[in-house]
Amino acid sequence: MTKSPKLASGVFAAALTPLTADLSPDVARLAGHCRWLLDHGCDGLAVLGTTGEANSFSVDERLAILEGLAEAGIPGRALMPGTGCCAVPDTVRLTRRAVELGAAGVLVLPPFYYKNVSDDGLFAAYSEVIERVGDTRLKVYLYHFPQMSAVPIGYGLIERLLDRYPDTVAGMKDSSGDLDNMTGAARAFPGFAVFSGSEELFLPLLRAGGAGCITAVNNVASPLAARVYAGWREGNDIEADNGLLVAVRQAIVRYPLSAALKEIMARLTGDGDWRRVRPPLRPMEDGDAEALAGALDDIGYTPPPPP
Amino acid sequence: MTKSPKLASGVFAAALTPLTADLSPDVARLAGHCRWLLDHGCDGLAVLGTTGEANSFSVDERLAILEGLAEAGIPGRALMPGTGCCAVPDTVRLTRRAVELGAAGVLVLPPFYYKNVSDDGLFAAYSEVIERVGDTRLKVYLYHFPQMSAVPIGYGLIERLLDRYPDTVAGMKDSSGDLDNMTGAARAFPGFAVFSGSEELFLPLLRAGGAGCITAVNNVASPLAARVYAGWREGNDIEADNGLLVAVRQAIVRYPLSAALKEIMARLTGDGDWRRVRPPLRPMEDGDAEALAGALDDIGYTPPPPP
Repeated sequence: MTKSPKLASGVFAAALTPLTADLSPDVARLAGHCRWLLDHGCDGLAVLGTTGEANSFSVDERLAILEGLAEAGIPGRALMPGTGCCAVPDTVRLTRRAVELGAAGVLVLPPFYYKNVSDDGLFAAYSEVIERVGDTRLKVYLYHFPQMSAVPIGYGLIERLLDRYPDTVAGMKDSSGDLDNMTGAARAFPGFAVFSGSEELFLPLLRAGGAGCITAVNNVASPLAARVYAGWREGNDIEADNGLLVAVRQAIVRYPLSAALKEIMARLTGDGDWRRVRPPLRPMEDGDAEALAGALDDIGYTPPPPP
Repeated sequence: MTKSPKLASGVFAAALTPLTADLSPDVARLAGHCRWLLDHGCDGLAVLGTTGEANSFSVDERLAILEGLAEAGIPGRALMPGTGCCAVPDTVRLTRRAVELGAAGVLVLPPFYYKNVSDDGLFAAYSEVIERVGDTRLKVYLYHFPQMSAVPIGYGLIERLLDRYPDTVAGMKDSSGDLDNMTGAARAFPGFAVFSGSEELFLPLLRAGGAGCITAVNNVASPLAARVYAGWREGNDIEADNGLLVAVRQAIVRYPLSAALKEIMARLTGDGDWRRVRPPLRPMEDGDAEALAGALDDIGYTPPPPP
């Protein structure tokens, strides 16, 4: 039995953003990384997300990344860039350009400075963005990540947005780690594509009607996640692959994710420039880096040969 | 006995930002509001803070506000604009321009998207800003507001920053509501100007060596706060004024602050345009607005005649 894919579905990496010596985005290297991910199991790429340090870049830097990826030939249909900022005009600018460049969708954080805001206020913020962009090609994926944004997206808000913008509001990335919240949303809102932010919940969510996963760990583990996804669609036994995928995740998520994944990329490519992160993030301490490398060796997973 | 003021000290309003019909900053009206506040007890103005909805504006909008206030003749020496963004280049742009325009200081949130970051990472972020601005006129006030930013600023970080940038790091606005944290910082770091974000802790903090207050409620209660401050410096009895100031605060802080204060300004000026806020904030509900107006009537405090 082969299950049919949703509009956006499957395995997405929340792509890392490599940096130059002055901590600017290294767009050429990012394009190479994106190509490598698309060649090794990724159905799509959530560039400019939490893992990609998007909120540490100015809007102009983020626009330059989107332009640069388009110029480098990364197909827009594979992209789901993060565009959600605290200021609605910033979210509008990024979202509009992403749509113009053919992005399959955009992953939109709620405005995340003010806490304990009402659903009315969050609805107004998303509504302003959708109305101001005013493009029928726009597909919005809501980004629920209460541990980081501290601004949760509840079912009541989703329902109101789907009711008002049924052709635009397409799904959600749920990084809460709460499987019940994900499966509940997949059940409550048919056609609404729910992605897990975690490998551990990827398969349980697929089985409950979810769309796939969008994860940081897919920067180095996408071939494994792709085998799990293909095996699930084809009804094959995927317990071993899934167990390995989850083990890789568990070894990495003990550390701050962007730094840990950049450390792995530095070792994989032999290029220490990969370790650069923008403040307030910091590169891994040497001891932690050694411990992580050892843990991944013990698991026995090797990422594909780097670009 | 008259106590001598610190470099920046006394009563500051975290100024509201009035909006036009399309929810853009109404800079002319803001300038009028700033003049009114400076004429009625404010020693300084923390424009573009949490109350001023700064993070709901793009960097270009915030720069236009700073330029507009300078053109309207609001003296830079009275200003302590908020300039802290998630992205270091944004903080640098805003801070540099504020210094060029003669701002007495800048109030700098830590990068507030990533949570649980290390003091190393926060030190690196502040350090990048200070080094990139590279101006001896720069005076940085750290903004500790864990309930909103979810990124606290601890004594260890303050100590490292003071050690490295003793002529630049000038003080802190503490909106934690924790008097012990404020008085502890005032004691631990001589010459470091600690401002309370609350009227209730204003007088206790002054008595423990603090510098003053920077508050939302001062948008409508600055004459009262000024009487408390002057009375404290001159050794007069200020219990009645302080009691009234605290009562005004307690009536207002039951509601989301920016909306409640804009509601009060709308009633005071007879101009409903004052009620506009940017999403994700929302104007007050009618019932809450009536209840707030009634509570303020009961207290018997009337703000000065509006501009």
